[in-house]
This record gives sequence, structure tokens and C-alpha cells, in this order.
Amino acid sequence: MPLPERALISRIRSMSASERRTGGAVVAGIGDDCAVLRANAGRDVLVTTDFTLEGVHFRRDWHPAESVGHRCVTRGLSDIAAMGGQPVAVFLSLALPGDLPQRWVDGFMRGILNQSERYGATLAGGDTAESPNGVLADIVVLGAVPRGQAVLRTGARSGDGIYVTGALGGSAAAVVQLRDGRKKPLDPRQYPRHFFPEPRVKLGRILREKKLASAMIDTSDGLSVDLAHICDESGVGAEVEADAIPLARVGRPSHQVDLKLGLHGGEDYELLFTARPNRRIPARIEGVPITRIGCIKRGRKILLVNGEGTRQELLPQGWEHFRK
Amino acid sequence: MPLPERALISRIRSMSASERRTGGAVVAGIGDDCAVLRANAGRDVLVTTDFTLEGVHFRRDWHPAESVGHRCVTRGLSDIAAMGGQPVAVFLSLALPGDLPQRWVDGFMRGILNQSERYGATLAGGDTAESPNGVLADIVVLGAVPRGQAVLRTGARSGDGIYVTGALGGSAAAVVQLRDGRKKPLDPRQYPRHFFPEPRVKLGRILREKKLASAMIDTSDGLSVDLAHICDESGVGAEVEADAIPLARVGRPSHQVDLKLGLHGGEDYELLFTARPNRRIPARIEGVPITRIGCIKRGRKILLVNGEGTRQELLPQGWEHFRK
Repeated sequence: MPLPERALISRIRSMSASERRTGGAVVAGIGDDCAVLRANAGRDVLVTTDFTLEGVHFRRDWHPAESVGHRCVTRGLSDIAAMGGQPVAVFLSLALPGDLPQRWVDGFMRGILNQSERYGATLAGGDTAESPNGVLADIVVLGAVPRGQAVLRTGARSGDGIYVTGALGGSAAAVVQLRDGRKKPLDPRQYPRHFFPEPRVKLGRILREKKLASAMIDTSDGLSVDLAHICDESGVGAEVEADAIPLARVGRPSHQVDLKLGLHGGEDYELLFTARPNRRIPARIEGVPITRIGCIKRGRKILLVNGEGTRQELLPQGWEHFRK
Repeated sequence: MPLPERALISRIRSMSASERRTGGAVVAGIGDDCAVLRANAGRDVLVTTDFTLEGVHFRRDWHPAESVGHRCVTRGLSDIAAMGGQPVAVFLSLALPGDLPQRWVDGFMRGILNQSERYGATLAGGDTAESPNGVLADIVVLGAVPRGQAVLRTGARSGDGIYVTGALGGSAAAVVQLRDGRKKPLDPRQYPRHFFPEPRVKLGRILREKKLASAMIDTSDGLSVDLAHICDESGVGAEVEADAIPLARVGRPSHQVDLKLGLHGGEDYELLFTARPNRRIPARIEGVPITRIGCIKRGRKILLVNGEGTRQELLPQGWEHFRK
């Protein structure tokens, strides 16, 4: 391991308040060949990995370092939330260009560590390398869920209602602004869902505990793509009511985003779930609004129904990131 | 998720014979927000992550695609071996340039999948992205070890013997050849430890089961660096006998590598371990020679002793990868 990497690891160690915490789930952390986690009897282990690449998922001139770290780890935490699980440990593989300012690295690591600890996860290991081009980060989050209780994408049945937490399109609205070639950076406070999104960990756990969700996913790729994942994996179709989709408010003065962003904009990290028709879904859980946006149908098509009752097929539109 | 990524995931799914294997440790694999692993009671979970970057860890003109995939996953399997553990699941985060030939991807995936299955691990998930520059792969390997039995780097004590499996410097010898500006590609059969190294999984497990190793690491960074890791983490020093270091034979006709490569060359993926003076260490385990190369001392210095008894300090020399 070249010396700069050892210095980085020392720094990460010293920044991580939970380093060498004993008695928790992490028995041995940074500083051995592997991290050692103690698995609880009766629990399944959840594992998710997410690549975050400079120029694809963020740009250094658009995103403060702390936002980049925060968003990196939120992607993984949100995947754990979408299974109804509890985050346990975070692993960070990080490749940095040689000329990256130390201040940037510190801000990035602060974003990772603060957000991990907020959701009860320990930074337990990872890998470092020198990057030939741009910042490259792969985040692995491990979580736990009672044995056999993880909420999968495969459980949707014809007749189930389709629900979404919070509001959609808020993160993509920031991307539209950023792409617009503006001179000044965006104010993160006007687009919190883009710069500092929060994963719906507690909400996901409640949906699982109360057995309310039959299938669940997080809206990382956008409603049209994520709903298609549930339908593909469950072997069903769906009808979505355009007027029912909760659209985010952004900017100052604030305005509602376009339906297109609500349908296809990614990275909101809300929960999209289905529920059996006999399940009463609260209007809010933990202060977060929950909206019914349609229902699961037989067949394999996903239809969008507008206010006049016109139906058109809703095709999954890949959410593009930042590359020009 | 853009469509090329979905196509890649389908391809990985169809290539992975163990996809959707049920009844094993992997309950749900590729195709949900997280993979779900069933943890056995009485076992700890081992986690290791390793970045493999084109131009840093491999070059497409030097390494066949299958060798790149094989080496990627061997890095993680070897970390599990160094804890005395059993590999369980592999996760692959993969970012590929848009113009990468499908043939390359297929060869790379074959390397990953064959090597994972050889050691009993299932490819259980990951992430895909389009890379702005070169192939980027982060491999996560999860393993299992009986509770509290993982062999750590912290257990070396003054008086312990220092042992290494196999031979050292064979992988670095290939790098020396490759760097030499040669026209023809190297023949992987003449440098198997570089192109197709095997992790010492079974050997590591036997050392753990028989309680022979007090501390253990794999030689991924090179003897001088990896022994320094054991000494750092255990708070001890060491004396290494130069003449005792088992040097690899490479090439055709085969020749022994220089001591310098044995001391500092990385990526051999042998096991370096310490053992209490009262432990009898076999000369071979599972057909692999085991060589005593020195002993652990008080203090913090690592000394190299040559044939005439002269001592000099052995400083950790970072193993450089392929970048020019």
C-alpha cells in the first residue's frame, strides 16, 4: 500500500468516532484483511453496493464535497430502507486523483461519516487507491432484517394499491437547473432532496413491521423505471393516475416540478411500495406523507391515466446523470 | 438504470449458474435493492472490498480479460483466506467504458464467475455504471468464520515464528517484464502467480482450525509492507532471514526471482503468519510448502539479517502498480 493511502486510512480512522467500537455489530473494523461483523441469530444480512463516479453522478463544481459524501452513502442506506432493514455497517472503496485538495477529502468524509452515524451504521472498512481520472467511490452498506422478513420486489399482486412516500422530482429539478449552464452554484437549501436527501429508513422498517407493504423499492432511478422493476420482478402490470403523483416543490419562491420530472426523475430516495387492498395505509408515517398513486393490474403493461381518463403506456425512461 | 446496464445485468444473471440458488446462504440475489444472506448462528461475517482500476491494477494490452476478472476476485478471496474464513458471496460494482467490446466483458465475467464458484462463493449482486475512463471494478467478498475465531493481524507476540506459504516475488517478476517495454504479450503460463493466482483458502482455514497461526495477513502489498502491517497492529518488531525467503521461479527456462522482488513484490496472495514457539508447523499443508523466514521481536523495528549475520532495517516499500 503506497504511503498516501496509509495516510488516508489513518485520517479516516481518526475521523470515525465509531472506530474500534466494541460490543456492537462490528467486532473488528479498519486495519485487518476483512472487517468482522457479528451476525445476530434470527436475522438475515442485507448487502447493497453503489458506485458513485465523478462526472457521472456528481460534479465537483456543482456539488459541495459534503453533499457528495452524503449522497454516496444515502444511496446504500435507501436500499436497506427499501427492504425494511436496519443499516449496520458501511464500507467505502475510494480512489482519489493525486491532486485532490485535502479539504475536499475531509468534507467528503464528513458527509459519509455523519450520514452513516445518523442511521446507526459504522464505517467498518474499505479500500483506497489513486485514481487516474476523477473521484471514484463504491459504497457498500450492510444491514439486518428479521429472518425471512425482507420486503422484496417480487410480492406485488393484481389488485394491490401503489403508494409513494414524500414527493417526486425534487432531485431531478436541481439537475435541470445545473445542466442549464448557470454561472452561480445552486443553493443546496433550495434543493435539499438533491444535495442532502434522507433515506426513509424508519418508515421502511415500520411498513415491514406492520406488514403493510407487499413489495417495495426506493425511487433511485425514477418512478417509471422503479415501478417497472417491481412489475418485472412480480410478473404484473400497473395503472398510475397522473393527477395523483405527489410532485415536489423546489426553489425560492418555491414552485411545483413538472409531471415529467415526477415520472422519470431519479435520486429522490423515496419508497415506492404496493399493499394488499385490505390494508389501511396511513396518510402519514413519521410525519412523511404517503400517497396512493395507482394500482397493480394483471398483464405486464404499465399505463398512465390522465385526468380525462385517457390511458397511455408509461415506458421506463432511464434517468440520465450529469455527463454532457 | 439506463438500458445498457439492464442488459449487462441480464447477461450477468444468465452467466451466473448459481443465480437464484435457494437453500444456500444467498436467499435473494441480483434483482432487488439488496442481496439477502442468511447468517448461520455461531458464525461471524467477514467483509472485504478491493478496487481494481484499469491503468493502475491492470492494462488491457497486458492482461487477458479472464485474467483481470480472476485477479479481481482473488484479491477478495485471499483476504477471506487470511482470516481463516470461508468465502460465501461476491458483489461486483462495475463501470465500463461505452466502447468496450462485449467479448472483453464476457471474458472478464467468466474470470469472476469461475474463480468465485471454485471457492464456493455466489455472485450475489452489485452495481453497474458507464465509466468515463477505463474499466473500474470494485469487488466485495463476504465470508464466514466461527464466532470469535477470525485470525487477526493483532495476535503476534515476541518469540513467535514468522512463516510464509508458497513462494514470493513471482507476480512482481511479471510486472518487471511487462514494464520493460516488450513487444509481445507475456505468456500467462510462465507467470501463473501473476495472471491466475490462487488464494490459499483451504490452507488458511486449516491454520485457523488447528490454532496454528497467532496472526495472519495475505501478501498482497509485498512482504516488507505486509509484515509491517502485522507488526504495527500487534505492537511488535521482527527479524527476517534473507536467505530463508522462498523465492518464486518464473519464465521458461525458469529462473529464481531476485531477493528484492521477494521482499517487496506484491500480489502473490500467499499467507504470511506468525505462530507461537511451541507450535509445530508442518513443512507442507495441502501440498503447499510453508517456510519459516524469521521471528517476532520486542520493539518496533523490522530487521533483515543476511547470510553473514549483518542486520539492516527492512523498511516497507510500497508496491507500485502499472502506471507509468
